[in-house]
Amino acid sequence: MAVQTGADILRKLLDKSKPAIAMAAHNPLSATIAAEAGFDSVWISGFELSASYAVPDASIIPMGTHLEMTRCIAESTSNRKFPVIADIDTGFGNAINVAYSIPRYEAAGAAAVVIEDKKFPKDSSLRLNGRQELVSIEEFQGKIAAAKAKTHLMLIIARTEALIAGLGEEEALRRALSYAEAGADAILIHSKKSTPEEILSFCRAWPDEQVPLVLVPTSYTQLSFADIAALKKVGLIICGNHAIRACVASMRKVFGRILKDGSIAYVNEDIASVSDVFEIQGDAALRALEKEYLR
Amino acid sequence: MAVQTGADILRKLLDKSKPAIAMAAHNPLSATIAAEAGFDSVWISGFELSASYAVPDASIIPMGTHLEMTRCIAESTSNRKFPVIADIDTGFGNAINVAYSIPRYEAAGAAAVVIEDKKFPKDSSLRLNGRQELVSIEEFQGKIAAAKAKTHLMLIIARTEALIAGLGEEEALRRALSYAEAGADAILIHSKKSTPEEILSFCRAWPDEQVPLVLVPTSYTQLSFADIAALKKVGLIICGNHAIRACVASMRKVFGRILKDGSIAYVNEDIASVSDVFEIQGDAALRALEKEYLR
Amino acid sequence: MAVQTGADILRKLLDKSKPAIAMAAHNPLSATIAAEAGFDSVWISGFELSASYAVPDASIIPMGTHLEMTRCIAESTSNRKFPVIADIDTGFGNAINVAYSIPRYEAAGAAAVVIEDKKFPKDSSLRLNGRQELVSIEEFQGKIAAAKAKTHLMLIIARTEALIAGLGEEEALRRALSYAEAGADAILIHSKKSTPEEILSFCRAWPDEQVPLVLVPTSYTQLSFADIAALKKVGLIICGNHAIRACVASMRKVFGRILKDGSIAYVNEDIASVSDVFEIQGDAALRALEKEYLR
Amino acid sequence: MAVQTGADILRKLLDKSKPAIAMAAHNPLSATIAAEAGFDSVWISGFELSASYAVPDASIIPMGTHLEMTRCIAESTSNRKFPVIADIDTGFGNAINVAYSIPRYEAAGAAAVVIEDKKFPKDSSLRLNGRQELVSIEEFQGKIAAAKAKTHLMLIIARTEALIAGLGEEEALRRALSYAEAGADAILIHSKKSTPEEILSFCRAWPDEQVPLVLVPTSYTQLSFADIAALKKVGLIICGNHAIRACVASMRKVFGRILKDGSIAYVNEDIASVSDVFEIQGDAALRALEKEYLR
Repeated sequence: MAVQTGADILRKLLDKSKPAIAMAAHNPLSATIAAEAGFDSVWISGFELSASYAVPDASIIPMGTHLEMTRCIAESTSNRKFPVIADIDTGFGNAINVAYSIPRYEAAGAAAVVIEDKKFPKDSSLRLNGRQELVSIEEFQGKIAAAKAKTHLMLIIARTEALIAGLGEEEALRRALSYAEAGADAILIHSKKSTPEEILSFCRAWPDEQVPLVLVPTSYTQLSFADIAALKKVGLIICGNHAIRACVASMRKVFGRILKDGSIAYVNEDIASVSDVFEIQGDAALRALEKEYLR
Repeated sequence: MAVQTGADILRKLLDKSKPAIAMAAHNPLSATIAAEAGFDSVWISGFELSASYAVPDASIIPMGTHLEMTRCIAESTSNRKFPVIADIDTGFGNAINVAYSIPRYEAAGAAAVVIEDKKFPKDSSLRLNGRQELVSIEEFQGKIAAAKAKTHLMLIIARTEALIAGLGEEEALRRALSYAEAGADAILIHSKKSTPEEILSFCRAWPDEQVPLVLVPTSYTQLSFADIAALKKVGLIICGNHAIRACVASMRKVFGRILKDGSIAYVNEDIASVSDVFEIQGDAALRALEKEYLR
Repeated sequence: MAVQTGADILRKLLDKSKPAIAMAAHNPLSATIAAEAGFDSVWISGFELSASYAVPDASIIPMGTHLEMTRCIAESTSNRKFPVIADIDTGFGNAINVAYSIPRYEAAGAAAVVIEDKKFPKDSSLRLNGRQELVSIEEFQGKIAAAKAKTHLMLIIARTEALIAGLGEEEALRRALSYAEAGADAILIHSKKSTPEEILSFCRAWPDEQVPLVLVPTSYTQLSFADIAALKKVGLIICGNHAIRACVASMRKVFGRILKDGSIAYVNEDIASVSDVFEIQGDAALRALEKEYLR
Repeated sequence: MAVQTGADILRKLLDKSKPAIAMAAHNPLSATIAAEAGFDSVWISGFELSASYAVPDASIIPMGTHLEMTRCIAESTSNRKFPVIADIDTGFGNAINVAYSIPRYEAAGAAAVVIEDKKFPKDSSLRLNGRQELVSIEEFQGKIAAAKAKTHLMLIIARTEALIAGLGEEEALRRALSYAEAGADAILIHSKKSTPEEILSFCRAWPDEQVPLVLVPTSYTQLSFADIAALKKVGLIICGNHAIRACVASMRKVFGRILKDGSIAYVNEDIASVSDVFEIQGDAALRALEKEYLR
């Protein structure tokens, strides 16, 4: 009986003809709703988790908090075929930090981790004029190799911020190929251009048949999942921050309405029912446990 | 220089002519949005926190998780006059558990805690056919006294579930008065009737001029804040679960739409912009820190 | 490749002709030293953990703290054949709390948990005039059944406090047999008599060939491991609190000596060398990682 | 009523004629025993905490774990005049990480933090051939300034590793003076020479009358507290790792003896009694609470 097969499931899902679609999550609730909605996987986003704690996405949330949330999300979806991908930013320091973190993420139930080639402490990729300095290729290869050596199960996805850092496609390709050579199971190539030309050009130029790409089309929204599938290069599409952005918008709307109305009577169509929440909390399973074991 | 004045602020807000309005929260993000929207305070709801972890509201979330979330919420709103009210359910066991918990909640920055008279482990009040057994009045008075003895700052709000448990108004009044006598700073009286008669009757019968009531009108939504203010008995109205219910509804809608569209291009009006999220994360403060201290 | 075999190892170690010997631990350091010394297993003692936090052993340490320590201990000994036994007291509430806790302990790497039949919140068994009230047999059978249903791997060891509570051997046997019937893999029978007669009598009377006993001879120290083995009833002997008691004695001695001497020069024979500590921290493994992956 | 006066107490204790003596601690137990023994303060050592988790002292323990231990130690000694000094290594990254960490350490009850000028991730100072690369003076001044700006209460102690890194006394003085200029309340000057000449020379050369030095004489043990006091330059002496080293030695001894004896009967003089442990756990306070509030 295999205890941990999230990685196996994810490996099969990385289909370049039909890329897996992952939704971002910041807690077990968002992951559960993503699973219910039909997403293939969940992305435990550092940006979302930071936002849920109302702090910048700049290596401020302690590693322990992200790890514990990964564990809780993996637990909450453990009865589904729903692999959990952990966004571990730069790996919390150098290759040694990576080496000590990886077994803990594996034990937490992650199917994959994504490590990026920015310097620690990181800055958000989407931030205007952010600090986007990268470590050397050699140093990052050491991180990938350390990660690979410390896991038997998880996929190690290398993320290059070369395009984000304005280093151009050639450097991005050079880095991506070097990371694949160091053992990366997939390459996340990030772009924050508001049109898809940059990312399309990279994808078309990507020569490695064995290593699928991962895209996060936050900025170039006009590129549909079908457009991406048509490239035959991409194994995974991540909707990088749509859970937290949905929450922010709806809380703002509902909170404002309640104060304006001086009442909670008029927001029902914008909120879930209490019984819907009970259902997500696993009320049926709880009732079964109560019936069977409470004496 | 007073370090912790949330309790002082809250004490003044408990105005029976103009009750304070608190919104529920399950993380610093929801608390921050509640503060921005203009709520007076935030209710760190056990129901919301449990739901955010996708587990039932039945004393399953460990105390440490609720305490840490209280601390993070208090930190995230510490630059505002925004008192934090911690829902500590039954107090995590008996009066001894209460005595050991209270200083930790005070240190975490809570302005008040609410303790309820159900037996540990609790069941959700809103649950159909839930376990609503109460401890004896004497036992609960011991819990209140222990809580009062262990804090110099926080308000101790006693919550009676007598109406929820179907024990009737007379028992509810007897309990509420006994809890006030034991030192409770306010009484949360809970009802899950879908009309407000039960709660109105209790409020009108409430004889204690010194001790304000607290209402959570989740079920009897037709009672407006103005209606409640007109009673001149209630110091605090808690919107008990509207943050999580807003999040559930919007994530379901947005997630469904993305998969249906095969694209993230068409959900923009239902989600906040990335720059809005940056703003909530304190991007301006971060930039000021970077300018001043990064060398 | 089996990920978690601690339970299998422990099952084999429960040999009534040659009982396994477990040492108590309160952190990965004490567990590591126990493994090095040659103990068969480690007992993550609630008493030791409480003492290390300087609070009473009375359900005050939050469940999350004990769970995290279990995880860290299991991680730190994961490269050894060294099963970890978690002392989960009463199971943190009722059978529902047990049901939700058990998968988390399994995921944390525990080979076994011990659940006791005291009421929550528990009091220390060794405490003079402590609260030693037990739950009903039926209720505790529900807890055992819930635990068994929620794990495929771990052993569930039921601990009866009947002798501690002064209920006599007959009740102790009745309870122990009922717990075995409900599925317990072993029975921990606890006594705090300063002589072994009580425990010897129980062991001799124990009729179940399939279910080994577990002893914790804290009070009746004169009973040697060989004496216990000779009974052919006991599969596991737990040294219940000797790690923390060793630490307390030595810190008191060393701290006093340093202040008395006005110097740290004269305590060297009572303390480990810094390089000994480095070795326990895994310095050799760290150097290997540095050599291989730091670039 | 001042909530947090540890810093005030510590400030007074930094007496160059009679330096305060701090003992290292890795949990509330060791801190409590240090307070009982008569130490003035406690040093929440990264080395000790790492060792207690059996991992290297190399920025591997997550920040949250150290912060939580600081909080628990401060709580456990809150009824004593016993300031808590947190060893926060490099400040968990850059000046921004420092800025976000400092308020959390203040809220956790620390009287002071010590920040060191090594690059993140750090390596242990005592480690042979360790990575002892320092950040630039300017960068570290930014960290000190950020720390000072973010606390009203705590002392910020700057630690220079210039001697450890082999940069010589001149560079050590230059750094120490620059750090004092940036606002450091005291300077921890570290040396791992096995004789005191290096540290004595630095102390004698130290020109700043306002800013006391802090010594950690782990390696040059022959320098007594009286010798150090005679320098009239040092406000604080830290016994940097004697709690964990005492624990390691005693657990090894006791564990070995138990297995050799096949019995726990012969270690009593090397371990504390159970009732001694109860006393440290606050049994008297617990009994008072039980008598007053348990009904």
